[in-house]
Amino acid sequence: MNMFYILDILGTISFAISGVLIAMNKRMDIFGVLIIAFVTSVGGGTLRDVLIGNTPVAWMKDMTFAYVIISSTVLAIIFKNKIDYLRKSLFLFDTIGIGLYTVVGIEKGLNAELHPLICIALGTMSACFGGVIRDILCNEIPVIFRKEIYATACILGGFVYFLLKFTAIDSDLVFIISGSVVIISRSLAVKFKISLPSLYRD
Amino acid sequence: MNMFYILDILGTISFAISGVLIAMNKRMDIFGVLIIAFVTSVGGGTLRDVLIGNTPVAWMKDMTFAYVIISSTVLAIIFKNKIDYLRKSLFLFDTIGIGLYTVVGIEKGLNAELHPLICIALGTMSACFGGVIRDILCNEIPVIFRKEIYATACILGGFVYFLLKFTAIDSDLVFIISGSVVIISRSLAVKFKISLPSLYRD
Amino acid sequence: MNMFYILDILGTISFAISGVLIAMNKRMDIFGVLIIAFVTSVGGGTLRDVLIGNTPVAWMKDMTFAYVIISSTVLAIIFKNKIDYLRKSLFLFDTIGIGLYTVVGIEKGLNAELHPLICIALGTMSACFGGVIRDILCNEIPVIFRKEIYATACILGGFVYFLLKFTAIDSDLVFIISGSVVIISRSLAVKFKISLPSLYRD
Repeated sequence: MNMFYILDILGTISFAISGVLIAMNKRMDIFGVLIIAFVTSVGGGTLRDVLIGNTPVAWMKDMTFAYVIISSTVLAIIFKNKIDYLRKSLFLFDTIGIGLYTVVGIEKGLNAELHPLICIALGTMSACFGGVIRDILCNEIPVIFRKEIYATACILGGFVYFLLKFTAIDSDLVFIISGSVVIISRSLAVKFKISLPSLYRD
Repeated sequence: MNMFYILDILGTISFAISGVLIAMNKRMDIFGVLIIAFVTSVGGGTLRDVLIGNTPVAWMKDMTFAYVIISSTVLAIIFKNKIDYLRKSLFLFDTIGIGLYTVVGIEKGLNAELHPLICIALGTMSACFGGVIRDILCNEIPVIFRKEIYATACILGGFVYFLLKFTAIDSDLVFIISGSVVIISRSLAVKFKISLPSLYRD
Repeated sequence: MNMFYILDILGTISFAISGVLIAMNKRMDIFGVLIIAFVTSVGGGTLRDVLIGNTPVAWMKDMTFAYVIISSTVLAIIFKNKIDYLRKSLFLFDTIGIGLYTVVGIEKGLNAELHPLICIALGTMSACFGGVIRDILCNEIPVIFRKEIYATACILGGFVYFLLKFTAIDSDLVFIISGSVVIISRSLAVKFKISLPSLYRD
């Protein structure tokens, strides 16, 4: 699980930095920025753990996440004028985070013996809720609203996960492939400006 | 309990459809619409279960709700141009849903041995929170704000529930009467444009 | 613990009244006002208890809080035209409430055997979340956004709490001193218009 742990940390870092960037645009002070970074990083996993009943929630038990979030926030503030150069790799990290949180959420749902569809919903919430609450606190239009494919990529990855589960494929490989589906489908959708048609009533 | 289960499903359907209608007005794509439908339907019950500590929350354990929400969403999208004709029956379903969720919430509170006033608060939250979170996610003014009587009808039904509890009336009948009080008081209030005076400070 | 219980009640009263004042400005009816008062008072403690897994949450088990909130709301509505004279003492009560909720949150975290940093986060959330959710429901800019020092005072008080823990000082005194740090630092910051610099990216 070492590689997944590292990817999980990378996801946490990128969500934290995305929180810092938005909070600084709102001219918040250092603790406001730290709080937004924290909420963005742990929001999704917190909702997941609370709904399953897995409390105290994960970030309260493993201090690594708190240290990573605080360090990322401090570094992002120090290098605030250079971070625009990082925006492209940030998008990559953010997308890796979404891919990972989706699959981690699905697996936590399976551990709680929940139905596959519920697990996909749980994985999608884990991946998206941090960004939604960040945007609500910052008075931005929440991510699931925007043209960009976001939740859709998570749901797609979730279905791939359960399709592969029925095959003889190794479970680590199922993790990697379905996580990659989230990452690649979101990246391609943004690169080629693909979006699902909006359902406007005529 | 079969009749109540059917009414519960009707409530779920109507909340889902009300979510679909608002999400489509916001030009969301199909998964955005599905997520809003889901949140509107299960939001109130989820909050109730989390506060009591009844986890994993109800919709994670009984798949019926997920299937009903997905089917209602798909049907609402297919018949999107005809749904305006249904708006009147939607209001009815929505109000039935509120009436039901109020009493179901109260009874879950009683099972957890909570005080009647707390049970009324819990029932009101169960009935109203789905609509509130739908409106926050869609940047609408939350339902409890609007002129329309909404939470007030739930609180009224809750008091009737406990008044009747002190009598010798059969508990199924208490359920039906107090649920009906919610439904009728809201319907009459909307029909005759009755609202409580707003408490504006002079 | 009698003095702390009284201070806790004072905090509850002041948060309830601050909810009433904002809700009346939004021209809500009496039940809308009551709901906002309730959410403002119990929001922070509810989030804290849910994250720790201490359910049913506190206000569901001790009716004193419900009675205090309902009485404060009714009194605030009756004396609505005189309450402006109270605004100054309200700021004091509100600040006492924040100080108290911070330390109560920290101690609940310690009881759940959580790390000091996590306890500080928990205390800060307990103190601030009620105000944040009140502002979101009322479409106001959430408190943690505003120029005023708010979360910062809680975090400061939290660090003082753990610094004093390492000394031989009596634990009641630790409670009083760290709570006072929150109260005094916020009061001084507001009086002398001190705020941390906002982190605007150049």
